[in-house]
Amino acid sequence: MDTMAALKARSAQLVDLHHIMALMQWDQEVGMPRRAAAGRAGQFATLSGLLHRQETDPKLGELLARAGEQPELSGVEQALVRVLRRSYNRNTKLPEAFVTEFAQLTSEAQACWVEARQRSDFALFRPLLEKLVVMSRRQADYFGYADHPYDALLDIYEEGLTTAATEQMFARLKEPLIARVHKWQGRTPGLRFAEPFAGADQERFAARLLAAMGFDFDRGSLARSIHPFSTTLGHHDRRVTNRYSPHGLDFVFGALHEGGHALYEQGISDELAHSHLDDGVSLGIHESQSRLWENIIGRSRPFWERFFPELQTFFPAQFAGVDFESFIQGINRVEPGLIRVDSDEVCYNLHVLIRFELEKALLEGALAVADLPVAWNEKYDEYLGVKVGSDEVGVLQDIHWSHGSFGYFPTYTIGNLAAAQIWAQYKKVDSDYEQTIGTGDFFKIRQWLTEQLYRHGSVYPPTELLEKVTGQPLDSKYFLEYLDDKISGIAG
Amino acid sequence: MDTMAALKARSAQLVDLHHIMALMQWDQEVGMPRRAAAGRAGQFATLSGLLHRQETDPKLGELLARAGEQPELSGVEQALVRVLRRSYNRNTKLPEAFVTEFAQLTSEAQACWVEARQRSDFALFRPLLEKLVVMSRRQADYFGYADHPYDALLDIYEEGLTTAATEQMFARLKEPLIARVHKWQGRTPGLRFAEPFAGADQERFAARLLAAMGFDFDRGSLARSIHPFSTTLGHHDRRVTNRYSPHGLDFVFGALHEGGHALYEQGISDELAHSHLDDGVSLGIHESQSRLWENIIGRSRPFWERFFPELQTFFPAQFAGVDFESFIQGINRVEPGLIRVDSDEVCYNLHVLIRFELEKALLEGALAVADLPVAWNEKYDEYLGVKVGSDEVGVLQDIHWSHGSFGYFPTYTIGNLAAAQIWAQYKKVDSDYEQTIGTGDFFKIRQWLTEQLYRHGSVYPPTELLEKVTGQPLDSKYFLEYLDDKISGIAG
Repeated sequence: MDTMAALKARSAQLVDLHHIMALMQWDQEVGMPRRAAAGRAGQFATLSGLLHRQETDPKLGELLARAGEQPELSGVEQALVRVLRRSYNRNTKLPEAFVTEFAQLTSEAQACWVEARQRSDFALFRPLLEKLVVMSRRQADYFGYADHPYDALLDIYEEGLTTAATEQMFARLKEPLIARVHKWQGRTPGLRFAEPFAGADQERFAARLLAAMGFDFDRGSLARSIHPFSTTLGHHDRRVTNRYSPHGLDFVFGALHEGGHALYEQGISDELAHSHLDDGVSLGIHESQSRLWENIIGRSRPFWERFFPELQTFFPAQFAGVDFESFIQGINRVEPGLIRVDSDEVCYNLHVLIRFELEKALLEGALAVADLPVAWNEKYDEYLGVKVGSDEVGVLQDIHWSHGSFGYFPTYTIGNLAAAQIWAQYKKVDSDYEQTIGTGDFFKIRQWLTEQLYRHGSVYPPTELLEKVTGQPLDSKYFLEYLDDKISGIAG
Repeated sequence: MDTMAALKARSAQLVDLHHIMALMQWDQEVGMPRRAAAGRAGQFATLSGLLHRQETDPKLGELLARAGEQPELSGVEQALVRVLRRSYNRNTKLPEAFVTEFAQLTSEAQACWVEARQRSDFALFRPLLEKLVVMSRRQADYFGYADHPYDALLDIYEEGLTTAATEQMFARLKEPLIARVHKWQGRTPGLRFAEPFAGADQERFAARLLAAMGFDFDRGSLARSIHPFSTTLGHHDRRVTNRYSPHGLDFVFGALHEGGHALYEQGISDELAHSHLDDGVSLGIHESQSRLWENIIGRSRPFWERFFPELQTFFPAQFAGVDFESFIQGINRVEPGLIRVDSDEVCYNLHVLIRFELEKALLEGALAVADLPVAWNEKYDEYLGVKVGSDEVGVLQDIHWSHGSFGYFPTYTIGNLAAAQIWAQYKKVDSDYEQTIGTGDFFKIRQWLTEQLYRHGSVYPPTELLEKVTGQPLDSKYFLEYLDDKISGIAG
C-alpha cells in the first residue's frame, strides 16, 4: 500500500496549501489594510504558482496511474483516488503561467470590484472584467468541452453539469416561477422597523443563532466582511462571515445561510480530515444546506415561534409594533427586487437565470462586457419587472466575477431545488418536524443531515449523493410544492 | 544584469512566502478557533518545508556566487546580495527534515504554552520545552560557532552578536542597575484607578495614540492577542496587536511599544519593497524604536502634558482622583516585580539578564528544563528581590521559548541602550525636543528617524547603522544617563 500512503501524504500537503490560500482570502475580505491589496495579489500569485507545480507534478500522475492497479482499496481510498484524478486532470490542463496570471488578476479584480461597487461605477471594473472573460474562455479551452465552452466552467463547481442540463432545469422553472411571482407579488406587507439596528447587537444575535444551529465555535469563527461567505481553513477551522446593515434582517438570514454551509463542513467525518475528501462535494449540494437552514427552517413559522421572542428582547425598540404574524408575512414576502441576496425564495432563481444567460452570452462572445450593464438591466425589467437605477445594485452587486468564477451561479438554483428535495425526505423520518424545529434544539435534524449527507464529505459525486439521500435525481417539483405549501398559507 | 534580476525575483518570491507565514502566525494568535491548532501546525510544516526548499535551492547559491562577479552593483544591490548570502548560508546548513520538524514543534508548543500559562502549570509545557532545547542545540550545531553554541543563536536575531559580548554588556549594567533599583525602589507611589477599564474604550484610545504617532491605518491594523506583537505581512501591511486588561495602563504602553516597531517598518523606503531589505535590520535596532516610543517619548512629561487631558476624558471614572504629578510618578515608578513586560525601565534589563543566564545554562546543558522553574525563581529573588508565586507569572510568562526563539531576549537590552543613544543624537538636532513632543505632532521626530534610520531597512548591518546614526558603537552610558536624568527628577 505504498502507493496509497504516498497519495494520502500528497493530498494532505495540497490540502494544507489550499487552506493557507483560504486564510489569505479570508483575511483579504475581513481585515486586510486598504493599501495591502497589490502586495497580497503578489503573494497569491507566488503561492498559486507553487501549488500548481505540486498539483501538476508528474509523480502525482504516476501515483494515480499506479493506484488503479491496487486491488484492495477501501471505498474511501477509491473515492480519494477519484477526486485526486479529477483534480490532477484539471490542473495539468492549465499552464503554470496561466495559473499565476489568473491568480494575480483575480486578486486585483476583487479589490477593484470593492471600489467600483462603492462608487457604483461599472467603467472602473470593466477593463478587469474583460480580461477575466478572456481568461475564462482560455480556461474553458484548456479544460476542453464537448458542446459548449461554458460546460467546462460549470463542471468546476458541479461535477458533470452541462449548459444543456442547466437550460433544461431553468426551462422547467422559468414560467412556473414567473406565474407565481405574478400571483403572490405584494400580497403581504413588508417589514418596517422603528429604529436602525446596531452592528454589535446584530453580531451578538447572529452568534446566538449560529450557536442554536449547532455551529461549533471551537472549530470556527464569525467575522465581518462586505459580502458574507463561509470558508474552510482546516478540518477544525470552518469560518463564516456576516455583514451588518442598520436596516432590515439581512444579518439574521446571512448568519443562517453561512451557518448552513459551515454546519455541512463541520459535519464531515474526522476520518476524512486532511484530505481532498474533507470538503463539501459540490457547490450545489453546499447551497442546498445553506438554503435549507436559511429558508426552509429559518423562514418557517415554528422556527420563529421559538426565536421571535428572543429577537424582540434583543431589539425591543426596532420591533415595537411588529407582531408575530406580520413578521412571518414580512420575512416571506414575495416582491421582485434588484438584489439577488435580498431576494425572496420565489424570485431568487430568476436572478440566477439572468446571470446564467448573461455568462453564457459573454463566454460565447454574443455579448460584449461593455454591453453587460444594459443587458443586465433589460433582463431585470423583462423577468422581474424592476428597473435598475445604478450599477451598485445592478451588475456590480455580486463578488463572483471578480473571483473569475463563471459557471458558479447555476449552483444556487441546484441548491434551492436540492434543499427542498432533501427536506421532503427528512419529513418522512420525522413527521413531527414542525415540533422539532419549534424546540429550538436542532440536534435531531443535524444528526440526520450529518448521517445522511454531511459526514460523507466528497466521497460520493454530487448526483450519486443526492440519489443516495433522496432516492432519485434532482427534481424541481419538490421546490415548487414547498413554495406552494408555504406561500399559499401566508400570501393566500 | 540578468543575475541581479534573477536574484531580485527570487528575493520577492521568498519574501512573499515569509509574509504568508506571518499571516498564519498573526491569525493563530489573533483569531484562530481553539481546535484548529494542530491543523495549523501541519500547515506551517508544509509551507516551511516548501520555503526551505526554495531558500536552499542550489540555483540560488549559484546566482549568489555569480553576483560577486558583477562589477557595477548599486549600494542597495550589494546590500541585497549580502543579506541573501547570510540567509542562504544559514538555510543551507539546516536539513529540510529538521526545518519541518521544528516548525511543527513550535506551532504545537505555542498552543501548549497558551494552555500551560492559563493553568499556571509548567509541567504541561515541560516536555515540549525539552524538545525545543534539544532542537535549538542541534540548530546551533548545524549553524556552527567559534566559542559557544549560544553564539550561533544570538547571531540569528542580532548579526554578529556573541555570548562574550552579551556577557560584557550585562557586566557593565548589572551592578549600576541593581544600585539604582535600591536607590529609587518604591520612592514614588503606584497608580490606583477607581474603576476597571473597558476593553472597547482601551482599544479606541490605543488606536488614537497610534494615529497620533503617525501609524498609517491604511498600511496596517490593530488587533487583539494574548501577547502584544507587531508583524509584517507585506510592504503595505504592518500590523500591531495589543491586549486589554481591565487593570492598569498596559494597553497604553503596549500600543506605544508595538506602534514604535510598526513605525520603523512603515518607514522603510518603497524602493526596498518586496525584497529581503524591506525589513527592520535586527531585533536590537527594532527594539530601540519600540522602547524609544514607549519609554523615552511615551513616559515623558511633555508627552503627557499633551495627552493626559485626553486620557482623562476617555476614562473619567477611572482617573477620578489621579492628578498629573501622581500620574507621571506612577508611570515612572521603580518597583521590582515579576513580569518583564510590566517592568519599569530600571528593572527591565535585569529581567533580560535572568533569561540570558538561564538560556545560556540550558544550552550548555548546565541546567535541566526540569530545574528551570526553581532556577528562575532563585534569580528573581537574588537580582530583583521578588518571590515568584506561580509559573504563570514566572517561567511561563513569555511566549518566546514556545516559538523556539533562544537568543532573542538580549536584543531587548540592546534595544534599550540603542534607544537612549539614538535619542541623545536626536536631541542634538532639536534642542526644543520637549516642546516638539508637547505639541502631540510627531512629524518632526518621525521624519528624522525615518531619514536617519527607518528608510534604510536592512541595507546596513545593525552595528554599522547605529554608528551611522550616532557616530559610535553601542555604549551603555547614554541609557544610564537617561535614567538618571529622568528618574532623579521624579523619584529624587
